[in-house]
Amino acid sequence: MLLDPAPAAHEPARDPAAARAAFRAGLAVPSSGWAPGHAQANLVVLPRDWAMDMLLFAQRNPRPVPLLDVTDPGSYRTPLAPDADLRTDLPRYRVWRDGECVDEPTDVTGLWTGDLVAFLVGCSFSFETALLDAGVPVRNIEQGRNVSMYRTDRPCRSAGRLSGPLVVSMRPVPGSLVPTAVQVTARMPEVHGAPVHVGAPGALGIADLDRPDYGDPVVAEDGDVPVFWACGVTPQAALLGSRPPFAITHAPGHMFVTDVTDAALRLP
Amino acid sequence: MLLDPAPAAHEPARDPAAARAAFRAGLAVPSSGWAPGHAQANLVVLPRDWAMDMLLFAQRNPRPVPLLDVTDPGSYRTPLAPDADLRTDLPRYRVWRDGECVDEPTDVTGLWTGDLVAFLVGCSFSFETALLDAGVPVRNIEQGRNVSMYRTDRPCRSAGRLSGPLVVSMRPVPGSLVPTAVQVTARMPEVHGAPVHVGAPGALGIADLDRPDYGDPVVAEDGDVPVFWACGVTPQAALLGSRPPFAITHAPGHMFVTDVTDAALRLP
Repeated sequence: MLLDPAPAAHEPARDPAAARAAFRAGLAVPSSGWAPGHAQANLVVLPRDWAMDMLLFAQRNPRPVPLLDVTDPGSYRTPLAPDADLRTDLPRYRVWRDGECVDEPTDVTGLWTGDLVAFLVGCSFSFETALLDAGVPVRNIEQGRNVSMYRTDRPCRSAGRLSGPLVVSMRPVPGSLVPTAVQVTARMPEVHGAPVHVGAPGALGIADLDRPDYGDPVVAEDGDVPVFWACGVTPQAALLGSRPPFAITHAPGHMFVTDVTDAALRLP
Repeated sequence: MLLDPAPAAHEPARDPAAARAAFRAGLAVPSSGWAPGHAQANLVVLPRDWAMDMLLFAQRNPRPVPLLDVTDPGSYRTPLAPDADLRTDLPRYRVWRDGECVDEPTDVTGLWTGDLVAFLVGCSFSFETALLDAGVPVRNIEQGRNVSMYRTDRPCRSAGRLSGPLVVSMRPVPGSLVPTAVQVTARMPEVHGAPVHVGAPGALGIADLDRPDYGDPVVAEDGDVPVFWACGVTPQAALLGSRPPFAITHAPGHMFVTDVTDAALRLP
């Protein structure tokens, strides 16, 4: 139905509605850099029968699963962007059956039944902007790479059929700026909040920082210390490990662009 | 089964476990002043069929419904106080059938089926302590009264069968200390957070401050300004208005004493 255009030089839209319109028209590119200053969200869509487990998992694990909104069954609307349509406005989706990814469409209108509940989960893009604003370098951005992510040996609190390890993202931070990084992100609990650990990866059960479980290796500079934050991959890992019969998520990096400003996610 | 002792001069226990043990033994007194410095929680217990609506209502209305914990169906345990038993450790309960209060027992063990889910909701006792610590007088405490609470004309975001107005508590605060009161409570989002309104009651649809919908009238002193916070009565009002077939709550003022310190609920 929608065209999947050939790669082209698209200038990222600065306005969230314009970004969503471009993606709705079929543009399937990572959303990083689009609508700067506005929060982007992870998407997880589940049958109603699984929604209670997911809500409980989020309530019990707020650091890795900060819920920005949850829809009514069947609804594709959210107050995070009142004119948006969650079925069409992400650049690319993943469709899962029994825990296996079976398709990566740019539109899921035909799959959106009255039984589905959508979860919008905060994303660390928001706190990366805040770190940069505070003068903390973000190495993965400098190096043009995806952030490094690792499974830890810390279990999440389980909820119904959902259980799994805490997944963390790691950013190398100059030692003198670690206190700033902690303070800046502590004020943003809706996008993972303060780090869960600073320093020794072994304390989290991480054997080798150069071999992340997800994302890319990121090179630390002299004097950098590894800082670990709870990561939004955590719920997807727990969810897909439990193999629900059906799910839709965003494709990695292809997030939902909201009208909410990053500033609105910062506590005083 | 449990005795309901005649009123006696009971020195409030300073230790949370000792407080719970006294209530478990049948002491049925308001919990204010017990285990000072430790958070107390509102209790709402619902059949599993209603738990999804309640979880959604809380997610959509975090100011009036800050969830501290939600149990697995049938469980009466919570990490907020690992040795506690939610069926026995509150000083007094209310039992509701079809939206009507039918009993006020001190033990609900016999009613706790495998189908029930318990919600523990943050309570403003925690932020009143923080206000006093910051030098902000709390008139309802000074006057030995319950705080004044009002239904507003602001609707909550509805969730499934649950809808209703935002209920607020009001504390008169000296005008010069309103900024302090805002900053102190803004750092405690798990116990209602910053005020929702300062000043004109009419803007919230409140006709007469001297006639609260719940609690007692509290006398303002010269130079005091009314400050309004989202109130934990909100979910109970929405819930009981929708008349679930069965529910258990704490009796007013007879809260669940947790092991969590008030300090742990303050953001940096």
